Amino acid sequence: MKELLNFIENNQEKHLEQLKEFLKLKSISSEPEYKEEVRRTAMWLKIHLSKIGFEKTQIFETKGHPIVYAEWLGAGTNAKTVLIYGHYDLQPVDPIEEWHTPPFEPTVIDNKLYARGTADDKGQIFAHIKGIEAHFQTYGKLPVNVKLLIEGEEEAGSGNLDEFIANNKGLLKCDTVLISDTEWYTFGLPSICYALRGISFVEVKVIGPNRDLHSGSYGGAVDNPIFVLAKMLTKLKDDRGKILIPGFYDDVVKVSEEERKHFKNLPFSEDELKRSIEVEELSGEIDFSVLERIWIRPSIDVNGIKGGYIGEGMKTIIPSEASAKISMRLVPNQTPEDITEKLSKYLISIAPKSVKVIVNPAHGGNPVITPIDSPGIKAAVKALEVAFNKKPVFMREGGSIPVTDTFSKMLGAPPVLMGLGLPDDNIHAPNEKINLENFFGGIKASAVFLSEYSKL
Amino acid sequence: MKELLNFIENNQEKHLEQLKEFLKLKSISSEPEYKEEVRRTAMWLKIHLSKIGFEKTQIFETKGHPIVYAEWLGAGTNAKTVLIYGHYDLQPVDPIEEWHTPPFEPTVIDNKLYARGTADDKGQIFAHIKGIEAHFQTYGKLPVNVKLLIEGEEEAGSGNLDEFIANNKGLLKCDTVLISDTEWYTFGLPSICYALRGISFVEVKVIGPNRDLHSGSYGGAVDNPIFVLAKMLTKLKDDRGKILIPGFYDDVVKVSEEERKHFKNLPFSEDELKRSIEVEELSGEIDFSVLERIWIRPSIDVNGIKGGYIGEGMKTIIPSEASAKISMRLVPNQTPEDITEKLSKYLISIAPKSVKVIVNPAHGGNPVITPIDSPGIKAAVKALEVAFNKKPVFMREGGSIPVTDTFSKMLGAPPVLMGLGLPDDNIHAPNEKINLENFFGGIKASAVFLSEYSKL
Repeated sequence: MKELLNFIENNQEKHLEQLKEFLKLKSISSEPEYKEEVRRTAMWLKIHLSKIGFEKTQIFETKGHPIVYAEWLGAGTNAKTVLIYGHYDLQPVDPIEEWHTPPFEPTVIDNKLYARGTADDKGQIFAHIKGIEAHFQTYGKLPVNVKLLIEGEEEAGSGNLDEFIANNKGLLKCDTVLISDTEWYTFGLPSICYALRGISFVEVKVIGPNRDLHSGSYGGAVDNPIFVLAKMLTKLKDDRGKILIPGFYDDVVKVSEEERKHFKNLPFSEDELKRSIEVEELSGEIDFSVLERIWIRPSIDVNGIKGGYIGEGMKTIIPSEASAKISMRLVPNQTPEDITEKLSKYLISIAPKSVKVIVNPAHGGNPVITPIDSPGIKAAVKALEVAFNKKPVFMREGGSIPVTDTFSKMLGAPPVLMGLGLPDDNIHAPNEKINLENFFGGIKASAVFLSEYSKL
Repeated sequence: MKELLNFIENNQEKHLEQLKEFLKLKSISSEPEYKEEVRRTAMWLKIHLSKIGFEKTQIFETKGHPIVYAEWLGAGTNAKTVLIYGHYDLQPVDPIEEWHTPPFEPTVIDNKLYARGTADDKGQIFAHIKGIEAHFQTYGKLPVNVKLLIEGEEEAGSGNLDEFIANNKGLLKCDTVLISDTEWYTFGLPSICYALRGISFVEVKVIGPNRDLHSGSYGGAVDNPIFVLAKMLTKLKDDRGKILIPGFYDDVVKVSEEERKHFKNLPFSEDELKRSIEVEELSGEIDFSVLERIWIRPSIDVNGIKGGYIGEGMKTIIPSEASAKISMRLVPNQTPEDITEKLSKYLISIAPKSVKVIVNPAHGGNPVITPIDSPGIKAAVKALEVAFNKKPVFMREGGSIPVTDTFSKMLGAPPVLMGLGLPDDNIHAPNEKINLENFFGGIKASAVFLSEYSKL
């Protein structure tokens, strides 16, 4: 282990120069004029991966940008296999005038490296590549089998990834998926995100009279679809944040006191949150802290609503219809299929006879959780502790990372989110950066993870 | 009286020919290419009014189309004065291909006269003109002073009428305003509409976080402005149709049992109403019949609602804001100023601290009522009874006719709505018609009204 870490420390300058070279490639996936540059970046990666010791490297074509794949299976069929996921494509750079240094000329200022992709995600995936290289250089081999899957369309919606995974289940078979595309809870706190909420969507339309009616000639005697929809929405959640859909909480797993203690110890300021979004009061379930409401409790939101006349001025109508888009964030062991069906049934059951209700269910994604005592999480804890000299904290995410759901569903492999970014990295914005200590520490963390995971 | 009615009966053919001449003029006020034709129609009317015996006739220019005015004040300063209001302009004729006979070639089929403007409003105002002419021809004078105000912009919003009335209060001074631009309750039932609901508007905006938030990263801890607005709307009205704004009913005048009896005797079918608008159930206050809910009770409707993402597909946000347009129909003695203020205060009082609420009040119009035992209504009852050999029914209107409010506010003159149209007249649609018995009867009714009103 000591040799491994020494190698990494002695090669920092070289690793930084190589990362800079990777960062100079303008692999913006959503802008058609960069199509060839995206392909050149994939080729650059393939060649680099061959050079450092992967047995097999391959470019997989998709309907969009290519996927880079590499594997080293020298640990043998009895050894564990780690799949490392990341992406080599980038967000656009506009507004370009707000960059203090050019986005494709990587520049170090105050121990931070500035360029598009430093944190999201070239810097993070490159730390893994260098961690793997450290093993090859130090021991001539890896402690586990490693597969690398680096896509080129993450910033454009990963439109072809699911199909690729579905068609290559054998190739991608693994024991865990290490994902390095997330960030720490805050500066100085190495973090492991071990759970993500799922999501479920429904669109509901309330149809009243067969046309917009004159509110003078009918008002008072005919139900107004907007009022009806408003009342139906009001019946989704009570004043204390409890969701009123029958059976909604049936499959919600109670989170252990031990896990909840982790969250209690995290620095968090309600005042700061209120200030940042400019509201005077937060809301939600009083029996849960704000972090818990977002991380371990399911939620429901109306994402959009529309009905009647919404232009300038007034039009005195009872509109013929009104509609809303509703989404729910799910926690283990809720499933989008079940929750979507429960909501749909409930919406129909609470509609008065004066209207017709059409519910368009659109399933979403499953919640994802990797238990904190699972081998992957244990290895990540050790890796971050060694790399950053600090015990990492456990956190969850209120949103989803769809690829994690895909990996667990299609490969049955639990994801480990060992991100290296920081909340102030300006991803998707001008002046994106990575703190060099996070990049260099990340190389160590990746290297140690492989060693630790091989033992568990 | 007998001579008067005989004159009218003996001149039906001539009256019909003159009406046809009037109907051939294409006075469509909302289409610029008919501007000159509108003016020619005004001139035609002015000349016709001079010919039949008015002392003074005048074209008043406005920013839009001209107003035709005529007066005969020969009854003297001690006699009563009746102002008769109507309009000589027309709706457009599209879709022209659906007309069975050309809209500007008046054609009688089955005792009905087809042409644009037959019912709305040339046929109705012309019946008054012929009623007046009958007095001149029979007695050489009128039983009361008469002023005629025939505007040319009713179908284009009457944009210049209020200003004209405000600037000519002396000229237009009168004891009552006879308005002939409405319809009977149904075929065969001569009707007097003696009350109209008023209106009050408010726009409300609910502002939550300072930007659309990711519903994953915040959902469960931050109030959603759409939910908040939905709950606020739900608090406007209870399940039994009672409006919950404090003080909303304070000034609502209890309608007498006698008046309510009139409505009970009117033919009305809930099933037919439900079928026509295709709803399975009507709604509203159970202590009132459907007609009463629309005519004598105030109502509240949301005319439009908007918030968040309303395009195709989903966008998982907690939107920054949501807004609604709300209007209320008012009954005597509610005023739009008072009701608008009560609603605005209530909306602000029920908003949670987690949002800001902006209310944009926009006052509307007063409800209008002319007591059924007032001289104008009594004269109209007698006039319709004599003209159609049937006791007229009393009805109200759920909507507003803004000009009635203007006349009562600016001239202090109670309106009498003695319409001649029928619900199946196809006004604003192809194949507009007037039943000839309504036109000829209307001439008698107008003539008798003047006689009767002079005695009361």
